Amino acid sequence: MKKHILVVPGDGIGAEVTAVGKQVLEVIAQKFGHEFSYDEALIGHVAIEATGSPLPAETLAKMRTADAILFGAVGHPKYDNDPSAKVRPEQGLLQMRKELGLYANLRPIKLFDELLDASSIKPEILRGADILFFRELTGDVYFGKRERLDDGNTAYDTMIYSKYEVERIVRKAFEAARTRGKKLCSVDKANVLESSRLWREVVQALAPEYPDVAVEHQFVDAMAMLLIKDPKRFDVVVTGNLFGDILTDEASQIAGSMGMLASASVGDSTGVYEPIHGSAHDITGKGVANPLASVLCVALLLDISFGLKTEAQTVIEAVDAILKAGFRTRDIGNSSTPADKLLGTRAMGDQILERLKA
Amino acid sequence: MKKHILVVPGDGIGAEVTAVGKQVLEVIAQKFGHEFSYDEALIGHVAIEATGSPLPAETLAKMRTADAILFGAVGHPKYDNDPSAKVRPEQGLLQMRKELGLYANLRPIKLFDELLDASSIKPEILRGADILFFRELTGDVYFGKRERLDDGNTAYDTMIYSKYEVERIVRKAFEAARTRGKKLCSVDKANVLESSRLWREVVQALAPEYPDVAVEHQFVDAMAMLLIKDPKRFDVVVTGNLFGDILTDEASQIAGSMGMLASASVGDSTGVYEPIHGSAHDITGKGVANPLASVLCVALLLDISFGLKTEAQTVIEAVDAILKAGFRTRDIGNSSTPADKLLGTRAMGDQILERLKA
Ligand SMILES: CC(C)[C@H](C(=O)O)[C@@H](O)C(=O)O
Ligand SMILES: CC(C)[C@H](C(=O)O)[C@@H](O)C(=O)O
Repeated sequence: MKKHILVVPGDGIGAEVTAVGKQVLEVIAQKFGHEFSYDEALIGHVAIEATGSPLPAETLAKMRTADAILFGAVGHPKYDNDPSAKVRPEQGLLQMRKELGLYANLRPIKLFDELLDASSIKPEILRGADILFFRELTGDVYFGKRERLDDGNTAYDTMIYSKYEVERIVRKAFEAARTRGKKLCSVDKANVLESSRLWREVVQALAPEYPDVAVEHQFVDAMAMLLIKDPKRFDVVVTGNLFGDILTDEASQIAGSMGMLASASVGDSTGVYEPIHGSAHDITGKGVANPLASVLCVALLLDISFGLKTEAQTVIEAVDAILKAGFRTRDIGNSSTPADKLLGTRAMGDQILERLKA
Repeated sequence: MKKHILVVPGDGIGAEVTAVGKQVLEVIAQKFGHEFSYDEALIGHVAIEATGSPLPAETLAKMRTADAILFGAVGHPKYDNDPSAKVRPEQGLLQMRKELGLYANLRPIKLFDELLDASSIKPEILRGADILFFRELTGDVYFGKRERLDDGNTAYDTMIYSKYEVERIVRKAFEAARTRGKKLCSVDKANVLESSRLWREVVQALAPEYPDVAVEHQFVDAMAMLLIKDPKRFDVVVTGNLFGDILTDEASQIAGSMGMLASASVGDSTGVYEPIHGSAHDITGKGVANPLASVLCVALLLDISFGLKTEAQTVIEAVDAILKAGFRTRDIGNSSTPADKLLGTRAMGDQILERLKA
């Protein structure tokens, strides 16, 4: 198979972890006889520094012609502490999602057995949990009108959804539920929000088309509690952009660590594969970031964008094997991890590559 | 002390749990020689059934003249599954908050040692956690304009904050932090939302007035993760209405169970004391609801509205003693709770009353 992959490291630890992801792609290509070509592009803070724009036209052009995009992270503390900054790294990320029509963000939450102890949640609560989140990614308060009024003393943002936007993501979620545990949980705040009532109407209207899928509705507040109280009761979860942002970060504790979670953003064209951890400036450049989320992004990319199921499975098995062999990065290790098994970003990457080559 | 207390049971298990709360008030009055008088009023679904309105004028009038309000819960599944219902129980709750100017919702999250095992989170993560949440309660997307457009095919809600609204709640949080661990964490989504950037500006502007309090800012997604990963790092947390709704329900797992969490809504006038659990129609009328959140509401009421610290402490100690004696309701019990210690709502209430009388 001949494919062109764009690597977009972005900010913070993005460069360190996507470097490992790219090496995994190279080894997979070699092992299975594929021809992958690569390019790189800037986004976020590094793009602002280089070009003034968080999503330069050149980056967007390269994105449009790539077969898949391996993404790092976006963000910089400089802007977080300056609420009045007009140009912000995150604008690049949001604009990319909109321009590429990436309306469905898939976040599989599954614990590798070896990491049962890395979570703050009890092992007996976690064992067997396996959730697939569908987060809507191009609507909601992320893309509604926002403004200052009243000499800057009042500010608003608009949570907004149209039925067609809800329908296309909910359909994807129903279809995924069909191939899995046949349960769909839709999360909203329909007891207060009009946009949530519209969301719930759409789910209710579609449900009869999927009689084999059991549907439940949860309010986002109750869900934030249930998710960690009893994660095993969930199979596929579908929700809006903002609630999905919050709930999937929370759900990272189900997977042991944020450093283990990959996501796929898909929609009208090219898929973007991005760890759910952010730019993590506190550990940037220290060589300690966990590269496994980026490696698992590669597995999602191979599976979803290229349909290469065996290759994807090979990557996941390599991660599993390395964890079974006891190797850990700092975020998933603990006091009983032996010093020679506690690895930095590159060394962890090397273990994965060796295992893949074997 | 002579005081008038309005009991507003509302829907679902509200009646069962506030009945216990009221008995606790009666025993405390007797024990400490206070003169408490009582009245009752309707809100929510039961009010709609009786009067057509979720917050009848009579209820509101009674609320305005009470010295404090002991509140149950509001909500009914009938409306949840009917997104097009025009009159909804929750409107009564929201209107009450607005009419009474209850802009600050305090939610103390503290684990009783005996409940370390009732949580899905590991005991070593929880031991010592003690967080006081300040949730803004009369602004945000709860009270912004909402509308259907486009023949009903599009819906929006407006997240909106003015500086004065943020300032008054943030000041309360700073002042509370001063009397506690001297740390304040403000939660927003300032990397995306304009209303969050306004929120952050206000916190930054006030911080110099409280040089003894260490301030940190977290994005709501990161916070949803950190809260359960490392609850001990937080002291006072302040956030908007929607994020507070989600995060405090999540935080109920830190306290072992939602059935243990009380909240105080205060502001311009009368304080309202309300469990954070909802109407829980699945267990309504079965006599199994945990009344301890309502009992702990009484402790907050005595402390905050009446300044009766000893009385409040007496109630908390009674709860502690009963838990130490091994008594549990279903939600905080487990397979090793002996049958004669597993109590229903009334029996648990009776244990508390006996202990208070002793
Ligand atoms: C960086 C930020 C804008 C982004 C979001 O909120 O979508 C991030 O948290 C994510 O989940 O991808
Ligand atoms: C019932 C509902 C409207 C309410 C809210 O969202 O504020 C409840 O969840 C709460 O936390 O008091």
